[in-house]
Amino acid sequence: MSHYKNIALIGAGNVAWHLAQALQAAGHRVSAIYSRTAAHSQELAQRLPHAIPVSAPDFRGTSVDAVFLAVPDAALATVAAEVKVAPGTLVVHTSGSQPLDVLQTIAGAQVGVFYPLQTFSKSKPVDFEQVPLLVEAQDEATLKELELLAQGISRQVQRVDSATRKKLHLAAVFACNFTNHLFGISQQLLQEAQLPKDLLQPLIQETVSKAAQHDPFQVQTGPAARRDENVIAAHQHMLEAHPRYLELYKALTQSIRAGKE
Amino acid sequence: MSHYKNIALIGAGNVAWHLAQALQAAGHRVSAIYSRTAAHSQELAQRLPHAIPVSAPDFRGTSVDAVFLAVPDAALATVAAEVKVAPGTLVVHTSGSQPLDVLQTIAGAQVGVFYPLQTFSKSKPVDFEQVPLLVEAQDEATLKELELLAQGISRQVQRVDSATRKKLHLAAVFACNFTNHLFGISQQLLQEAQLPKDLLQPLIQETVSKAAQHDPFQVQTGPAARRDENVIAAHQHMLEAHPRYLELYKALTQSIRAGKE
Repeated sequence: MSHYKNIALIGAGNVAWHLAQALQAAGHRVSAIYSRTAAHSQELAQRLPHAIPVSAPDFRGTSVDAVFLAVPDAALATVAAEVKVAPGTLVVHTSGSQPLDVLQTIAGAQVGVFYPLQTFSKSKPVDFEQVPLLVEAQDEATLKELELLAQGISRQVQRVDSATRKKLHLAAVFACNFTNHLFGISQQLLQEAQLPKDLLQPLIQETVSKAAQHDPFQVQTGPAARRDENVIAAHQHMLEAHPRYLELYKALTQSIRAGKE
Repeated sequence: MSHYKNIALIGAGNVAWHLAQALQAAGHRVSAIYSRTAAHSQELAQRLPHAIPVSAPDFRGTSVDAVFLAVPDAALATVAAEVKVAPGTLVVHTSGSQPLDVLQTIAGAQVGVFYPLQTFSKSKPVDFEQVPLLVEAQDEATLKELELLAQGISRQVQRVDSATRKKLHLAAVFACNFTNHLFGISQQLLQEAQLPKDLLQPLIQETVSKAAQHDPFQVQTGPAARRDENVIAAHQHMLEAHPRYLELYKALTQSIRAGKE
């Protein structure tokens, strides 16, 4: 028996969009797409040579042997409760924040998690080879199967259980969600100073590259790290028009200082 | 008269190191290097075909027609007070946080600022063409001269006065110093979960690239942006062992939420 799968996709959003094409390119056959918004499943099916949009997530009596649930976190439990499969079908979700357990309502399924650690937009091509794929399953045989599948489309495959994936998600909130907010504040300050918004891009790139190569705490620079009280006081004065950013400035400065103690 | 300069460098640290080589490559002649640490000026002079280390920053009676002060911010005023030049010599500093005024003690000099907006390490090559150079001077003729000099080594030259440069510096603290601290926290959390520290790199790169192309506030994702109280509560619980990071989590989450109101 070939290890290539006959796959059904549930969801037709950003993750499903890129994942479907990566699975297809790796030699699998994406044969069915279900979305609560029929127009979305039709649009994605048109991109795939063998896929047809289906009107319900019921794959009993079909040749589908793997189902990928790529739906929003908040919808996952509800959609999972509707899924019907033949016994022994592989069913995985693609969420970083949801546990494996959420799929346990699906009778007869071999369940797992297949989490691509990246943010996707339909309009932007993705090199899936570079996307870390985090896999989890309830038994070793399913885990091996998932691993093989993942290794077919990415060079970075990692076994991560639900508890560890939660910790990873928290780390990602700091490294990505929170930094994005700081980039927003920075761009607003540039705009208010009538400076081009891309002026800091080379410095940001270098900061990211340095943090990847060293311990960021060790290469920390800036007024907080060198305890330059004059500059800190001047910055706080400049932020008086933005009390919310002033609070963040104080909290981050204090944390950097405390880390240097 | 050629627009190429006969240049003296004061300082032999990271900025001086890269700037000297970029000036030389652009056709200028770096003929003298002064550093309070003689070994540093000797080391840098060896890299430059025409440069000799000098024992004092006194360039009266020499053919030097431009002096670059690339010394730490905190040392700038002290070092500037020792500089002696022939009347009409161009004297610039390379600091982002210090005003033009700090050079006013230098008798006879045409003073200016020549600020490379990047972070440098001696061990890492720099493509100076991509480094934004921010220039300032007291009169238009000096400013034009500086601009021409800057355009010889970088494709991104910008006139920025001292008050605006201060605002830029504050924006850089948010976009670089503070984000670096968050990268440090994130790496620590990964380490504690026994996950590889580079696992989030693709996601960080995509976050930076997205923030450069869009308004970061508009593309903000994560539990704070979608007000996912369950995930936020779980994260805060996980951070109980790190009260300092918990405080930052709360402050950043609150600021993201307030921005969405």
